Amino acid sequence: MKKKLPITSIHKETDERVLRSKEAVLAATNQLLSETGLGGVSIDAVSRRSRVAKTTIYRHWPSRSALLLEACSKLGSRPAVPDTGSLKGDLTALAMTVANRLRTERWATVLPSIVDAAEREPAIAALHARLHAGFMTPFHSVIERAVQKGQLSRSTNASELIAAIVGPLFYRRWFSRETLDERFAKGTVERALRKSNP
Amino acid sequence: MKKKLPITSIHKETDERVLRSKEAVLAATNQLLSETGLGGVSIDAVSRRSRVAKTTIYRHWPSRSALLLEACSKLGSRPAVPDTGSLKGDLTALAMTVANRLRTERWATVLPSIVDAAEREPAIAALHARLHAGFMTPFHSVIERAVQKGQLSRSTNASELIAAIVGPLFYRRWFSRETLDERFAKGTVERALRKSNP
Repeated sequence: MKKKLPITSIHKETDERVLRSKEAVLAATNQLLSETGLGGVSIDAVSRRSRVAKTTIYRHWPSRSALLLEACSKLGSRPAVPDTGSLKGDLTALAMTVANRLRTERWATVLPSIVDAAEREPAIAALHARLHAGFMTPFHSVIERAVQKGQLSRSTNASELIAAIVGPLFYRRWFSRETLDERFAKGTVERALRKSNP
Repeated sequence: MKKKLPITSIHKETDERVLRSKEAVLAATNQLLSETGLGGVSIDAVSRRSRVAKTTIYRHWPSRSALLLEACSKLGSRPAVPDTGSLKGDLTALAMTVANRLRTERWATVLPSIVDAAEREPAIAALHARLHAGFMTPFHSVIERAVQKGQLSRSTNASELIAAIVGPLFYRRWFSRETLDERFAKGTVERALRKSNP
């Protein structure tokens, strides 16, 4: 005869089983994202890959977008805020981190599929906006700190400065596919910080 | 009784029928590209949309990539080379043209799907490289002319200057989705051309 488990143990076992199936689904989603981009991630494909039933997947995530949101939320986690003592040092540290991650990390291969889907699907556009805002937060932090410290004029347009630094990095990774090394990252920050010609 | 056509007329009729079916296939491919991006363009889908048989499509284009190459070759045709008399004027004219086209033209919606597929498919990566190189040619032309005229130092790294101008424009269109107006395009060129601080 089966030993009766106390109620709390049963709950614990159920919780663990739920956790394991959620983890399997997220792992399968991440694998598919790497292999095919967003386009290859359907609930059907995730169910086949994870061996978790579609009904179970839908119990945890009401829609494909909800599943993608959770899977992608760990993509390209925001870089740490550096504190080198100068704005140029901080921005250079951030630009080098971004360049390095663009070159080596999996999210750099996945992101274009999100950008593509965002052109047509509002739910994915919202997901992309959240990912992007998180990723840019450290840039805003170091610029804001430099303004507080009086190292940068209050009239500086932070979003234009960020575009001048991150734009060329993204451009090289996904469009021109040219070298994206530390020298280029450093040079980009130098150019972006140059003062107006008199 | 059917009138016998001279041989040349028969050839002409066949040529015109071939031309019409090719045009129908390319038009359907372009429609699908606009609606779904590259991911939705299969030979099956193009055949259904164009009502041209798959065997006929394969007679004109040996592969999906070949069809995409021809359909995309008209995407984002290269901007004209401006001649305003100054490098700054030329680059500003080009940056404004690019910003305007990024905001309004269909290829700006389609390009991310090409960039995405290029991450995984070498044939699409080659197609993207060709499209991109064509699109950047006018920038190289005006920079080369400025060097010839002595308006720009021979030591200028053209590809870094182009990244500093086009990078922020692409960044705003596809990543931050912020305002991409003439003021921003103009400011980007000004910042990119600033001299090194002494």
